[in-house]
Amino acid sequence: MTISKGRQAFPRTEYLRRLATVKVEMARRDIEALMINNLPNITYLTGYTAHSGNVPLGIVVSVRNEEPAFILRRMDAPAAIHQTFLERDNVIGYPESLIGSAAKDGFDIVIDSIHDLGLAGRGLGLELDNLSPRAAEKFKVRMPRARIVDCTNVVAWIRIIKSDLEIAVIQEAAAISDAAIMRTAEVLRPGAREADVAAEISATLVRGVDGKPGTSLSDFFFCTSPRTGTPHIAWSEDNICRGSQINLQLSGVRYGYHGPIMRTFSIGAPSERLRRLYDAELAGLEAALSAVRPGATCSEVAGAFRRTIEKLGFRKESRCGFSTGIDWVEPTASLKDGDLTELKPNMTFDLMLGNWIDEDFGCALADTFRVTESGAEVLNRAPRNLFEIQ
Amino acid sequence: MTISKGRQAFPRTEYLRRLATVKVEMARRDIEALMINNLPNITYLTGYTAHSGNVPLGIVVSVRNEEPAFILRRMDAPAAIHQTFLERDNVIGYPESLIGSAAKDGFDIVIDSIHDLGLAGRGLGLELDNLSPRAAEKFKVRMPRARIVDCTNVVAWIRIIKSDLEIAVIQEAAAISDAAIMRTAEVLRPGAREADVAAEISATLVRGVDGKPGTSLSDFFFCTSPRTGTPHIAWSEDNICRGSQINLQLSGVRYGYHGPIMRTFSIGAPSERLRRLYDAELAGLEAALSAVRPGATCSEVAGAFRRTIEKLGFRKESRCGFSTGIDWVEPTASLKDGDLTELKPNMTFDLMLGNWIDEDFGCALADTFRVTESGAEVLNRAPRNLFEIQ
Repeated sequence: MTISKGRQAFPRTEYLRRLATVKVEMARRDIEALMINNLPNITYLTGYTAHSGNVPLGIVVSVRNEEPAFILRRMDAPAAIHQTFLERDNVIGYPESLIGSAAKDGFDIVIDSIHDLGLAGRGLGLELDNLSPRAAEKFKVRMPRARIVDCTNVVAWIRIIKSDLEIAVIQEAAAISDAAIMRTAEVLRPGAREADVAAEISATLVRGVDGKPGTSLSDFFFCTSPRTGTPHIAWSEDNICRGSQINLQLSGVRYGYHGPIMRTFSIGAPSERLRRLYDAELAGLEAALSAVRPGATCSEVAGAFRRTIEKLGFRKESRCGFSTGIDWVEPTASLKDGDLTELKPNMTFDLMLGNWIDEDFGCALADTFRVTESGAEVLNRAPRNLFEIQ
Repeated sequence: MTISKGRQAFPRTEYLRRLATVKVEMARRDIEALMINNLPNITYLTGYTAHSGNVPLGIVVSVRNEEPAFILRRMDAPAAIHQTFLERDNVIGYPESLIGSAAKDGFDIVIDSIHDLGLAGRGLGLELDNLSPRAAEKFKVRMPRARIVDCTNVVAWIRIIKSDLEIAVIQEAAAISDAAIMRTAEVLRPGAREADVAAEISATLVRGVDGKPGTSLSDFFFCTSPRTGTPHIAWSEDNICRGSQINLQLSGVRYGYHGPIMRTFSIGAPSERLRRLYDAELAGLEAALSAVRPGATCSEVAGAFRRTIEKLGFRKESRCGFSTGIDWVEPTASLKDGDLTELKPNMTFDLMLGNWIDEDFGCALADTFRVTESGAEVLNRAPRNLFEIQ
């Protein structure tokens, strides 16, 4: 009748530590309840990784209780009991009749729970950027005495510094990414159908490595000539040709955490143009890593990269990286000019040096690194060279 | 220097037909510009299927121009030129400096384009449920004379009826779904690691069938005992056991279109409880399909299902299906009691009869069907039985 607890990615103490940090921030902002409905933030605070689809759900962190309450559609409640550290009484499934209903939806149940806590007239944090105007209005109308505070990226800024336990999981995700790159090098051949190579990649991302499977699949990007100037598209229905180039961007996933990588593959000898660009990116990558140390800013790391490739005759318009973790792209620090976020130990970044310099030409190179006490530790192990396939 | 047009899923005439229908709806609502930023709606109106991530983008359909303008980050503009039917001048890439910027973002460029059209003081449609309160406010502040009309599901309601060209693509997606189910039946064995079976499924979803690969991967769900009472979780790290049950929900994808399916697998003879539930769902499926005809309502189809399983001693709390297409779950018609949407030829539904009746027990059965001139045509071909694996 009841579902058991599943394998937990982290011990209860780790989640309570994260929640304690959130509660300190709540006190600083004078709020007594905080509703989190951004999925990566929910994963961070509970361990939930199921995909509930585009329906209201949220956790309510409050000064009243050690654990948050998790409100989600009834169908998904057993997954929340199974996957998270929460006591089952703190998982509240709302009726399926609220799905696809305009008048009343799951956020009404969230609001009910805040009323039940006696906190509807206090400071209330919402992730407003993650709500529609209609949903935000519902909170205002049904809690007219609440002082609503926008807490959109509050949890994201807390999770920018990873625990050692999280680093270990990100390392496992990065190892899966490496395995997918090496599998690509094995199966990528002239005449191979792009979709068949992509099938091997997806299988590797699920199968994982060292007995540790991927726990879900993240979109990956497989951009073959003439699409090497664009980063976010999938394999095509064509076959790989001699002279083609493939830019590959992918990430293994463990318990929601990413360890992304990008590599470039050339079928046959690379063109002079590609060789020069890739060498510049590689030199830029080394310069960026050399600039990483606690206390340096994101802007300084980006500057080291920029100056290096400019000397070699190139520019890169897009940022050269961002905080990575439960989101592949966390909405906090960017490695770009002007981002004055200070690096601290156990921040993790996707050093994303893909450079799409022309509509039909670019290349891909990225590694995941963590900030150590003294510098940078790259978590990927795949060779950094331009892969040349014969 | 310039990227070529890629293979198009549909001819230009098909996109112009869709746009014409949107423009009729705009006239009815007295709006002269409509900003669409829901990705499935953008796919529907342009053919774009790249994954631009969580950054502002939108198309502006206006009375001024035959084609919409597509505003997106510069990095993704070549993909929009390559994948869509749009003239290249109608693809507008905004600078990468606007990514991760709080003060000004891509929606400012959308607003600029509406000003440039001379339409900033007219009726303006927005998909408000797809905007944050902050983004919605930006439109109001920067276009104070515009009369803003919420058009959240306007395009979704237009695309509920598919063209024959779309049906053909959904049929291809459904064939991939079938292939993945049959591959599962081949590799699912006692002792097999769940992740290895899932790897084969993902590879099949990419590789496709009959020379038609999947064009992207949709999340799939692989719920093994004791997780058969929950629908939306992934494979675990465990091995399949004798006596285990697996509920599988997946969909092939072609050019963004889905053709979903669910099936239940039993390792060894199914329990009496599972057999009874599955037989009831199967009878319910046949009853629901028999009730499908143009003019019948969604509620009537749901009622036929409900009455059948109730006679056999079961209830299902969640709706028994929904419109499917570019979204797996389209936000329009639901097969549920009280949904009075009338069925019309070439509507397509995921007849989703997964029934999670206890925290630790449920089963999965679903097919995709289209409404014909006289009834229902099921687009999946995989056997409907409970798969018994020895």
